[in-house]
Amino acid sequence: MASQLPADPTQRFLEHYPVGAVFDIGSFSVTEQEIIEFARLYDPQDMHVDPKVAAAGPFGEVIASGWHTVSLMMRLFVANFLPKNGLASPGIDELRWPRPVRPGDLLNVRVTIEAARLSRTRPDRGLVHGLVEVFNQKGEVVMTMKPMNLIRVRPS
Amino acid sequence: MASQLPADPTQRFLEHYPVGAVFDIGSFSVTEQEIIEFARLYDPQDMHVDPKVAAAGPFGEVIASGWHTVSLMMRLFVANFLPKNGLASPGIDELRWPRPVRPGDLLNVRVTIEAARLSRTRPDRGLVHGLVEVFNQKGEVVMTMKPMNLIRVRPS
Repeated sequence: MASQLPADPTQRFLEHYPVGAVFDIGSFSVTEQEIIEFARLYDPQDMHVDPKVAAAGPFGEVIASGWHTVSLMMRLFVANFLPKNGLASPGIDELRWPRPVRPGDLLNVRVTIEAARLSRTRPDRGLVHGLVEVFNQKGEVVMTMKPMNLIRVRPS
Repeated sequence: MASQLPADPTQRFLEHYPVGAVFDIGSFSVTEQEIIEFARLYDPQDMHVDPKVAAAGPFGEVIASGWHTVSLMMRLFVANFLPKNGLASPGIDELRWPRPVRPGDLLNVRVTIEAARLSRTRPDRGLVHGLVEVFNQKGEVVMTMKPMNLIRVRPS
């Protein structure tokens, strides 16, 4: 069963991210036009911006830039997972795109807490290791990543 | 000394990415307005979108979303590193943001080839492991990541 975070992001603290918790943080979809517009700005590879070349390629149509998928997922991660006015993330491990994101796909995002511990040097915060999984409407995994996030302890 | 890739991206093949090669692939900068606009769309955390809250925080001003830094880097990676009409990337390891990217920063991007081998299953391509480093105008590292890229062998 999915876990619940406080709906008010100002009330999310380290104690709310225990190991093993699973959070369903929402869904998004993406159109061909959005795929092309994002990729023209940031990732103008033929497979993302050129419907004609993409049609002759392995996927048969344009597919979303992996960075576009991350960015759309991130909106949900900020709204429905992270605390408000939080701390900068040190980084991300094992970002993978095992299947393409296609125009019209409906993507669901799940976060599982894999590790969580108090900071050794800053007792006001902890380091949370998550696993983010993005599934398409067929239940196939299209993206995974393992973010690290610094989360504040509830003020005493 | 920096290595050189063929300037014509249609002429970049696996042989051009040997282990140890170092490519300087260009520079970019970012304004406060661009930082806020990107983050409003994709990463609306206070540190990226709210100059007032950010001024009271650890960095004293808004800083770029790490995904914005990746996305701006990616434009150079596509233009000056990847082959034209290339293959989808399996993923990225060890994405790190050790220092903030601030408004007005001038960022330089370097790619070092850490491993390169022929595909075991598809002899028309190889897998290249790179290290991407982004430096600011002080020479400080603000971002690193280790992308995997499938690169075609030159047609015989």
